[in-house]
Amino acid sequence: MTILKDLQWRYATKKMNGNSVPQEKVDYILEAARLAPSSSGLQPYKIIVVTDKVLLEKIKGVAYNQSQIVDCSHLLIWASWDGYTNDRVTAVFNEMMDERNLPHSTMDTYKQTIMDRFENYGREYQAHHAAKQAYISLGIAMAAAAEQKVDATPMEGFLEDKLDKLLNLEGTGYTSAVILPLGYRDEANDWLVKMPKYRTPKERFVTEVTINDANPDVDPMTESLEGIITPK
Amino acid sequence: MTILKDLQWRYATKKMNGNSVPQEKVDYILEAARLAPSSSGLQPYKIIVVTDKVLLEKIKGVAYNQSQIVDCSHLLIWASWDGYTNDRVTAVFNEMMDERNLPHSTMDTYKQTIMDRFENYGREYQAHHAAKQAYISLGIAMAAAAEQKVDATPMEGFLEDKLDKLLNLEGTGYTSAVILPLGYRDEANDWLVKMPKYRTPKERFVTEVTINDANPDVDPMTESLEGIITPK
Repeated sequence: MTILKDLQWRYATKKMNGNSVPQEKVDYILEAARLAPSSSGLQPYKIIVVTDKVLLEKIKGVAYNQSQIVDCSHLLIWASWDGYTNDRVTAVFNEMMDERNLPHSTMDTYKQTIMDRFENYGREYQAHHAAKQAYISLGIAMAAAAEQKVDATPMEGFLEDKLDKLLNLEGTGYTSAVILPLGYRDEANDWLVKMPKYRTPKERFVTEVTINDANPDVDPMTESLEGIITPK
Repeated sequence: MTILKDLQWRYATKKMNGNSVPQEKVDYILEAARLAPSSSGLQPYKIIVVTDKVLLEKIKGVAYNQSQIVDCSHLLIWASWDGYTNDRVTAVFNEMMDERNLPHSTMDTYKQTIMDRFENYGREYQAHHAAKQAYISLGIAMAAAAEQKVDATPMEGFLEDKLDKLLNLEGTGYTSAVILPLGYRDEANDWLVKMPKYRTPKERFVTEVTINDANPDVDPMTESLEGIITPK
């Protein structure tokens, strides 16, 4: 019941008390974020950590002046790829194959398949797709933070363009996706800590469907991914 | 070290053995997915569960014929909102306020703020935004599955349009975002289980930045979110 208890404990802390999260706990959370799975293992994002109080004040200024940004001890910023290019994808796959003692060419057919698909969807879709992978990592980082009894507030309330400019991300191929202050709740001054957690009721959140609910008029594909990435 | 160990144990299982995941473990994973946080607490997605072998075979047919879809015991499908409408957002906020014994009007100013922002970004952005929230839930569900020693393979390799049609999602306001078969690894026949896990090396994944790395020419905003959702 560990993770369910941790998820019940956590909440989107609105007021933090300024206390510092020990570095080993931050490292633990960052390692969980790094171990998160991603589409094709591409991990199209990195994490920028800010502890500098002067910079945190500047970031607060482009994030609707939300107090957690300066009352946390560490601000994590997931910066994701602004698109998929052949060079970026090749670099990751080559490292992956080196790690596995396989020839780089192992991934050639698969790489072509995904690059064709990305090309077809366009750059904006690609940037969203990369950000979605960052959100998997965000979810896992929040579970890790809760396990460590560290408060964490996922935040999208910032101006991406201004944050990118502030962090000099423009032209680097990365763009800010989501931010997560790590710190400790100020119980006495946080209105939300006293409120019951609200989620979609289970009976509406989960639906089981069978063949009787399905549309019979859908043709199957002939393409198969089986074998494409299996090393020979 | 629980979650880090679990993340080391898990991998994107390529070959499942057909064994059934006990219902209490599936329920545990679904409950973790339900407790995941989301932007403004809107939870703009639900989970469709498929165990019907005939339907799983049909889904495999629109998912590049990947074997895990029929060799798992439960397939979870995150279906997310295709956009944010005033009605959808109001319905969630009203339930949330009822749960907290607060008047519905508590959220009025905040609701207007986010709806203006969504409007500005357009419908495609909104659908991606909703899917991103589903990916947080996906990340947490995978951590929960790993804790329960249940194998889970996140998959985007399917044709969204065909899956939506097959599941009769068209016109419901939901669209398939990502799928996750739950089952057990077939150790003898899965090539990936023997391979080392590859991730971006830590020194490239995490970067710490200070005010010295920042661009000084960014003006702060005057808008503040502080107080907007604080009940008076």
